[in-house]
Amino acid sequence: MGNTNPSRSGTTGDLGTVSNDDPWSLLPVGPRRQLAQAAASEFGKRGYHATTTRDIAECVGMSPAGMYVHYASKADLLFTIARVGHQSAFDAMHLSIEGISAPKERVRSMVRAFTRWHAMHHVLARVLQYELRALEPAHYKVIAAIRRKTEQFAADELRQLVPDESRIAMCTIAVLSLGIDTARWYSIGKSPSPEELGECYADLVLRMLRR
Amino acid sequence: MGNTNPSRSGTTGDLGTVSNDDPWSLLPVGPRRQLAQAAASEFGKRGYHATTTRDIAECVGMSPAGMYVHYASKADLLFTIARVGHQSAFDAMHLSIEGISAPKERVRSMVRAFTRWHAMHHVLARVLQYELRALEPAHYKVIAAIRRKTEQFAADELRQLVPDESRIAMCTIAVLSLGIDTARWYSIGKSPSPEELGECYADLVLRMLRR
Repeated sequence: MGNTNPSRSGTTGDLGTVSNDDPWSLLPVGPRRQLAQAAASEFGKRGYHATTTRDIAECVGMSPAGMYVHYASKADLLFTIARVGHQSAFDAMHLSIEGISAPKERVRSMVRAFTRWHAMHHVLARVLQYELRALEPAHYKVIAAIRRKTEQFAADELRQLVPDESRIAMCTIAVLSLGIDTARWYSIGKSPSPEELGECYADLVLRMLRR
Repeated sequence: MGNTNPSRSGTTGDLGTVSNDDPWSLLPVGPRRQLAQAAASEFGKRGYHATTTRDIAECVGMSPAGMYVHYASKADLLFTIARVGHQSAFDAMHLSIEGISAPKERVRSMVRAFTRWHAMHHVLARVLQYELRALEPAHYKVIAAIRRKTEQFAADELRQLVPDESRIAMCTIAVLSLGIDTARWYSIGKSPSPEELGECYADLVLRMLRR
């Protein structure tokens, strides 16, 4: 059944584990978490390059100097946000198929969870995707590894439904793309609920994969 | 057959018409086109907010003052880029189905053209999507109208294949989302050619829409 029990510790370093729907629970309660949440919101509004450490520190009533006690730099904040977000999206997908054995139901559950995650956390998810190129090279390597792990995980599940190996790569791109792009257009109040959307996309994907 | 002959003049104002694969051909040859191309590239690299008019002017060997002869402001440049890009993507979709009567082949051609456009023009397309919220309110209204026209056009075509009206809205979102998100992950050299990708996504979408 493919890579169904990947180590969570490898790339996450000092991150905790997600026990609920809140990606930020990967960080300890306190100023590190508060600053990361504030930075994600500010980067989401203005973009990484146009946001200053002062903007972020002010959100939590800190001086820029106070912020440097918790994060070495703005780049370090972006890296933390990227790790939290990518790991949390992977965990959501991974946890969703636990205990399910029918390949079709595993794919349904995986698509539902991945889509739901991107709808629920669309502000964070936008920062993850749009600011990927703003990461420093060493940081990018770590994030790229989580992205590859996510792609591998999805491909391994899709492989159980798509016998034609030459189609797996494109199907994996399409399935993840549908989920990720939710973050771009999702709007609270106007869009279907994350649950409805997850259900609907899972249905569309299963149709797409039928022989 | 739905909205197959929409007016092109309504929202395009002073824009020309696309006669080839180059969105910039909507602008007259000369400094207005050069500045818009340079701005799209700079906004793509750093984001709209972090790019100065000096950065843009320097790309084409102009002073910021020289630039203001052609564009009233940085906001005006973003608006021009957004109009050119959105109109060009719509035109590509619209032109692709001309002379085709079978609904299935129209959808195939539409998905292929829309996906191909976003792969070919992925740098421009990223600016269109990621900087939408940076548009001034009056500018945003004009762009939102082109986006609604695009959605309406796609929905009208999908309606011919999907008899269940309650599914049209989500299918339209999914089909456009697949095409648009291509711009996020597309990488020259690493990704399939725009033509291959268009073909492959058209096939996936037709499977997705089967009864």
